[in-house]
Amino acid sequence: MPAKQLVLGAFMRPVSIHTAAWRYPGGIPDANFNLPALVRFAQTLERGKFDAFFMADHLAVMNMPMAALKRSATVTSFDPLTLLPALAMVTTRLGLIATASTTYNEPYHVARKFASLDHISGGRAGWNLVTSGNPAEAMNFGLDSHVEHSTRYRRAREFYDVVTGLWDSWADDAFIRDVESGQFFDPAKLHTLAHEGEFLKVRGPLNIARPIQGWPVIVQAGSSEAGRQIGAETAEAIFTSQNNIADAKAFYADVKSRMAAVGRDRDHLKIMPGAFVVVGDSVSEAQAKKKHLDSLVHPDSGMASLSVQLGTDAARFDLDAPLPRDLPDTNASKSARDRLILKAEREKLTVRELAQYVGGAFGTLEMIGTPATIADMMEEWLGGEAADGFNIMFPFLPAGLDDFVDKVVPELQRRGLFRRDYAGPTLRENMGLPRPANRYFPDPTKEHVAPTEAG
Amino acid sequence: MPAKQLVLGAFMRPVSIHTAAWRYPGGIPDANFNLPALVRFAQTLERGKFDAFFMADHLAVMNMPMAALKRSATVTSFDPLTLLPALAMVTTRLGLIATASTTYNEPYHVARKFASLDHISGGRAGWNLVTSGNPAEAMNFGLDSHVEHSTRYRRAREFYDVVTGLWDSWADDAFIRDVESGQFFDPAKLHTLAHEGEFLKVRGPLNIARPIQGWPVIVQAGSSEAGRQIGAETAEAIFTSQNNIADAKAFYADVKSRMAAVGRDRDHLKIMPGAFVVVGDSVSEAQAKKKHLDSLVHPDSGMASLSVQLGTDAARFDLDAPLPRDLPDTNASKSARDRLILKAEREKLTVRELAQYVGGAFGTLEMIGTPATIADMMEEWLGGEAADGFNIMFPFLPAGLDDFVDKVVPELQRRGLFRRDYAGPTLRENMGLPRPANRYFPDPTKEHVAPTEAG
Repeated sequence: MPAKQLVLGAFMRPVSIHTAAWRYPGGIPDANFNLPALVRFAQTLERGKFDAFFMADHLAVMNMPMAALKRSATVTSFDPLTLLPALAMVTTRLGLIATASTTYNEPYHVARKFASLDHISGGRAGWNLVTSGNPAEAMNFGLDSHVEHSTRYRRAREFYDVVTGLWDSWADDAFIRDVESGQFFDPAKLHTLAHEGEFLKVRGPLNIARPIQGWPVIVQAGSSEAGRQIGAETAEAIFTSQNNIADAKAFYADVKSRMAAVGRDRDHLKIMPGAFVVVGDSVSEAQAKKKHLDSLVHPDSGMASLSVQLGTDAARFDLDAPLPRDLPDTNASKSARDRLILKAEREKLTVRELAQYVGGAFGTLEMIGTPATIADMMEEWLGGEAADGFNIMFPFLPAGLDDFVDKVVPELQRRGLFRRDYAGPTLRENMGLPRPANRYFPDPTKEHVAPTEAG
Repeated sequence: MPAKQLVLGAFMRPVSIHTAAWRYPGGIPDANFNLPALVRFAQTLERGKFDAFFMADHLAVMNMPMAALKRSATVTSFDPLTLLPALAMVTTRLGLIATASTTYNEPYHVARKFASLDHISGGRAGWNLVTSGNPAEAMNFGLDSHVEHSTRYRRAREFYDVVTGLWDSWADDAFIRDVESGQFFDPAKLHTLAHEGEFLKVRGPLNIARPIQGWPVIVQAGSSEAGRQIGAETAEAIFTSQNNIADAKAFYADVKSRMAAVGRDRDHLKIMPGAFVVVGDSVSEAQAKKKHLDSLVHPDSGMASLSVQLGTDAARFDLDAPLPRDLPDTNASKSARDRLILKAEREKLTVRELAQYVGGAFGTLEMIGTPATIADMMEEWLGGEAADGFNIMFPFLPAGLDDFVDKVVPELQRRGLFRRDYAGPTLRENMGLPRPANRYFPDPTKEHVAPTEAG
């Protein structure tokens, strides 16, 4: 049995990244917004021993042309931090990771909500710390346009310091609750943050006990230069989007070496590419499923997805010509856009062809095959230091999820690549991550000292 | 059977308003923060056919001297909007009302989270719309001091317009989900708010379907001049704090007449005084329970509670003299402070005596007696137009709650003052409140047109 095992998350907002998933035969058209279905999915993931239910988020109806928007199942969905406490009550081991933006939130709210989720779930919360670069989001929060990229990242870094500082407001053993004397807590075990920085001024203390995990697990997804650096400094999992092993190995090596440079143990950050997995009893059956799914993408949707990815309206380009070289500058995710431009050049795709590709599964890593070929690929990525695990994207629901849990997971378990049971009740235990020491009340005999202030 | 029945909420944060509740024999010292206990309380309330679990909130560890703070069970508690989705999964009819501040929140977040809770609970959400006047809260959100009273209320009014406008982003029948044609929603049934006001600029639309109840039930608690007016214009329930029937009748008449002035039906707002209820098999047994409970209030706690209520440190006053007449001006809740000052004058209390009183149940309406005497009092308030119901405060847990549900509720039911079963699955149905029409997509045959823009 190999020493190293996969970490597996499930990317669940939208429950399928594929634009046409809601139209797939046997599917649940409102899966993204159907509580009983989401409960069933969470319980299936737990049966499959997944590390976590990972819920991405946007703070707006996404900006795309109405011709495509009206075909998108993503326009209605639950707020992650409202849904996950509900799912905590119908699961016992599954991790619950929610996205929360550092651009349009207050750190006191974020610290408190994730601490609450961690207590409610018995230590299963994770925070996917993102910045918001979408102009549609900005306009829902009082601005006329997005916040500039480097400003967002500087605020994100400070926001992280404040949230983790607030989580450390109380020592783990601060609460005495001595009925006899009437003393509820020990004042020596309470710390007031009194933070004043470039963007934030927050006094504290937080009005909730320290999270069960010390801190909820810190997840990130940025892969720009600024994103990699903040990830190396602070993340415990990175959800990445390399779609080939060469790029993935380069990213992996880069981030792990940045960790070494800031003095962090490389095993304390799990790199998890998103993987769009279609399972068949034969490779050709899996390919046929994918082909059928792609055929359900409406042409209007493809063009819109492409426009979102490029940060500009692609419909005004010549559809049967290559992508123009002089794309207008954008504040959208740079790494995704650069990958698309590179792919179009490399494969000599027209705008129309690129749109069809993007309209399917957004250029993500694809694993389309049998349980054995999928496990082969995962084994190669894990052994080759291209990944520590994957964030699985299901092509359609419920069948795509059931197939993964019933067919791929047992194959991974047979090979010793994945656990047969959970290591413990907390997300940190299952992901193999240390519990952070409280920076104000450390207990060096028991806990890992986590990185705090930058530089 | 009288035509009019009581509406009953349960004030659950802190689970007991009484400072010494956590020390009461047989109690749960961490009740405020104990998930299995809170689940049990919610299920007991549902067994008792309560309208709602009402969760107040503060966005800070309350500012009181450490000598008192260290004795307070309120320093650690769950975020309401994180706890209530969890409780939604273990109940089926109980309403779930959370406080959310309009001073330190963004309306897009508030609209989305309450809409999510309403969908998750099947139409049981309520929003207690408050302003935040506590300086300790301001300092957790980038400010040096509280926001001024009238500014807070102007922002609250605008905030309400934005949140309800966002809830109306989608017609109730906007989502078609036509698998065949690939159309997910009807663009003619989507409205973009594009709000620009004195305090807020929010584009919309909201990225979640219209709440099951149209809008979650709007609850308020302010009783200042500004608070009464916004309540009359927008609230569907007001949680009040008059502690005698004369004051309560005056408040009731004032608010209902303000409703008439803005063209609202007086039955569409339920006035619910907080009531601290101690149940005994005899009046003297109930009084003995209260006396024992008060005896557990530590002297340090009483002085601190008084200081919070007055908005100034009461410990620097002569404890055996009357309250000074020249109290410094404060931005704390004016109505609670004025009531206390009046009570001290009327009853010729020293500062010390006032502190003991406040340290117990904060000057709330008390109902201390047998199920019959408590029902008598409720009947008198209901029939006398002093209240439409009550927000019950339990003296200690779990016994105080169990006593109410097992002894008082059956007595109220016998008298026809309270339901024997829920009217339906939604909070609005149980409270007898109409479902608001969508202001952009009205259906006048079916729905009530709710008040929107002021003036």
